[in-house]
Amino acid sequence: MAKVLTSRSESYAQWYNDLVLKADLAENSSVRGCMVIKPYGYAIWEKMQRVLDDMFKETGHVNAYFPLFIPKSFFSKEAAHVDGFAKECAIVTHYRLKNDPDGKGVIVDPDAKLEEEYIVRPTSETIIWNTYKNWIQSYRDLPILVNQWANVVRWEMRTRLFLRTAEFLWQEGHTAHSTKEEAIKETETMLGVYANFAEQWMAMPVVQGYKTANERFAGALETLTIEALMQDGKALQSGTSHFLGQNFAKAFDVTFTNKEGKIEHVWATSWGVSTRLMGALIMTHSDDNGLVLPPKLAPTQVVIVPIYKKDEELSKISEVAEKLVTELKSLGISVKYDDDDKRKPGWKFAEYELKGVPVRLAIGPRDLENGTVEVARRDTLTKEVMPLEGITGKIESLLNDIQENIFKKALDYRTEHTTKVDDYEEFKQLLDDKGGFFLCHWDGTSETEEKIKAETKATIRCIPLDAPNEEGKCMVSGKPSPKRVLFARSY
Amino acid sequence: MAKVLTSRSESYAQWYNDLVLKADLAENSSVRGCMVIKPYGYAIWEKMQRVLDDMFKETGHVNAYFPLFIPKSFFSKEAAHVDGFAKECAIVTHYRLKNDPDGKGVIVDPDAKLEEEYIVRPTSETIIWNTYKNWIQSYRDLPILVNQWANVVRWEMRTRLFLRTAEFLWQEGHTAHSTKEEAIKETETMLGVYANFAEQWMAMPVVQGYKTANERFAGALETLTIEALMQDGKALQSGTSHFLGQNFAKAFDVTFTNKEGKIEHVWATSWGVSTRLMGALIMTHSDDNGLVLPPKLAPTQVVIVPIYKKDEELSKISEVAEKLVTELKSLGISVKYDDDDKRKPGWKFAEYELKGVPVRLAIGPRDLENGTVEVARRDTLTKEVMPLEGITGKIESLLNDIQENIFKKALDYRTEHTTKVDDYEEFKQLLDDKGGFFLCHWDGTSETEEKIKAETKATIRCIPLDAPNEEGKCMVSGKPSPKRVLFARSY
Repeated sequence: MAKVLTSRSESYAQWYNDLVLKADLAENSSVRGCMVIKPYGYAIWEKMQRVLDDMFKETGHVNAYFPLFIPKSFFSKEAAHVDGFAKECAIVTHYRLKNDPDGKGVIVDPDAKLEEEYIVRPTSETIIWNTYKNWIQSYRDLPILVNQWANVVRWEMRTRLFLRTAEFLWQEGHTAHSTKEEAIKETETMLGVYANFAEQWMAMPVVQGYKTANERFAGALETLTIEALMQDGKALQSGTSHFLGQNFAKAFDVTFTNKEGKIEHVWATSWGVSTRLMGALIMTHSDDNGLVLPPKLAPTQVVIVPIYKKDEELSKISEVAEKLVTELKSLGISVKYDDDDKRKPGWKFAEYELKGVPVRLAIGPRDLENGTVEVARRDTLTKEVMPLEGITGKIESLLNDIQENIFKKALDYRTEHTTKVDDYEEFKQLLDDKGGFFLCHWDGTSETEEKIKAETKATIRCIPLDAPNEEGKCMVSGKPSPKRVLFARSY
Repeated sequence: MAKVLTSRSESYAQWYNDLVLKADLAENSSVRGCMVIKPYGYAIWEKMQRVLDDMFKETGHVNAYFPLFIPKSFFSKEAAHVDGFAKECAIVTHYRLKNDPDGKGVIVDPDAKLEEEYIVRPTSETIIWNTYKNWIQSYRDLPILVNQWANVVRWEMRTRLFLRTAEFLWQEGHTAHSTKEEAIKETETMLGVYANFAEQWMAMPVVQGYKTANERFAGALETLTIEALMQDGKALQSGTSHFLGQNFAKAFDVTFTNKEGKIEHVWATSWGVSTRLMGALIMTHSDDNGLVLPPKLAPTQVVIVPIYKKDEELSKISEVAEKLVTELKSLGISVKYDDDDKRKPGWKFAEYELKGVPVRLAIGPRDLENGTVEVARRDTLTKEVMPLEGITGKIESLLNDIQENIFKKALDYRTEHTTKVDDYEEFKQLLDDKGGFFLCHWDGTSETEEKIKAETKATIRCIPLDAPNEEGKCMVSGKPSPKRVLFARSY
């Protein structure tokens, strides 16, 4: 059968784009830089949303909704924030169209110009802290632990489906606390939630750590990140959690009376993950045949394909298959029986491989005779004929195996592609030859960080939380360094 | 205790606004016409979303996501649609801010003007049908049964929380079919889903019917609606389902090859409900003491309040209460034990009444002695002391009773306020004196409909699906009429 995807070795970027399109995950729209998330892609995103939302609620958070538009002046209130966010954005300047006097279509009504322009939110700190001002008077009103699921817009010039789009979907948590310690703890808790989600659900190992000052969120005192390694040796920042100090509270004058009756500024955090996670999920596990999905996030976990020539064969196979469907569903497994007679088994096999369905069962007349079923797993592309008797329990444990196996595979890849380097020339060489994560000593200065970035396109992904203390010398400047930091080229 | 709400008799509009604010459902934002949906209001909306989403999926629909922005020219493609939707809207004209040369804040960069302006979607038919064009070639690609949960913007001049806001949240279904019959059936199916949701979950009786040509969705051949009656005698359109014929398929040139190999235009429907349903929910059931929520949609169904003076009393009450919490949760009932010692029981009683928690339990030292618990129901504001033994089963059936009771109450109100009238003067009089729904004969012309609207502010809410054939004369023109239609003043 002709390959539908460019292979990864030929062009990783083209493979990714082919896969997103061919597996019906998303496509570009007629609107510059905005994507359409297709039903299959959206079904995966919905699963991710549901799990994350449950995790947020378990950690005491509630959802709310704030306006799409932000008055332009709000962005001028937090100095660092405006430089980071308000520059490339969608700006609403008018509120009415009128019929074109030439009779062709509609034009913007010049009389309907806004006094103050609105920015389509690139992130919601400003509008939310302007709102919190009215919600917070006393320490009794704290903490506020709010999350929002929303669309945001950043006017990106070069876009790639899921990874970087002008409009994307995300969640943004915005919390308010009475003490610095509590806010820092929240920042860490939510990073832990993200890391747990990435590893346990997406089967994607991540390194947790601090961003350097250069790489921090605009307006944050500290940014925590989870960094994953893609199969092309590039890092992908997959979620961030920010300790915002009192910056936004001061910018929007949000104070509270503490237990001692004194007035203080409120402490803040924000944290978010986006549809970018879809890109991370795709690139971590998939292969030249198509998508590989972790069973825990696969919209369809098991597909059953009947193999038959005559209609009477089909009806016997269907009897067995439908019983299987019922049994699997009762175990909470999502299963599809595909008896569509417009498509041949070969087409279906390729289709479900492309779409990353973790387990495929095939049942033919010989299986009926022998009381067997053919079980194919997507991750290893292996097949095995198994007895029908007791098959549902085996499938259940097979799904767990696949979840563990793809995590282990991704972890092994990362281990093989994480290199300790002490020499800058060797670093540059290995970056080109092998890619991946590099643990190196760095002198802690922005100058060195920027020099490395300019010369190699590698950045400090994070200062890992678990980096052991190890005296060393910066690979560039030779100055002392207390621990290794994580470098990589990145998405 | 001082009343926190304006009474309904004093001012229904003020009562509504007070209630939305005081019950922490929503508030106005700093952005003109846009609301903030607060956590408690959002928790109710989430419950509604979850139930509706399950209903959509049960009827074969899947979710997807389309761009927030729509190129201006798209609106010129469907003539009726542009007049209905594209006039009062948010228009994006620029994509960059820059620092103000005066050093104060940021200004719109005049060099970053879009070639073609984008409209923030007021509804997504145009962008979706422009997308479907690429998804549909053959009858095998049909039907497409897609729903989208999204925010939309219509530049409303006079806004009211939930009922009419510039930005609101909704779902919009957009389906594509190979035959007219199938599309009409879909339109009807989805109206049925809405009616079922309104009655079974919101406990809100609705009249299902057809909109007249004047009241149809811009671009539809037929609009079906569910109409509910609020306690002030005004109707509220609560959900609509549109048969769009081939209008959008023709505007965006979406064709398919049918089974006979001929090329035809695709048939379309769209259907939606929005955060407006929150307004309907609030106004249908609530009273001068606050919100009354149907148990099926209440974020907290049962609250337990301890009544105590000494700490040792509290610890004994807590033991009983926590056991109750566990038992109720195991029945799938959402329950909160409020042992916050910063608030007195009286404050808590008022608070949960205001927030519409369906059942409140109070446990004091005497209850411990007697093995009893005080059970208060929000809908009737009645209290009863019951034996603790077997209380969870009683609460379960009490929640069902409340759900049924508030539906019945709303239905009784509607029955009492639905009047058959044959005389136009009497109609006008009763409209002012009593309000409600009016079943009247109408000659079927737009002229008469508009005359009535101009003179009375009443509109034809719908031509009810279940209206019996009944020969009569139009109350205004005296011309023949085959059946009565439903008139009311409305939101």
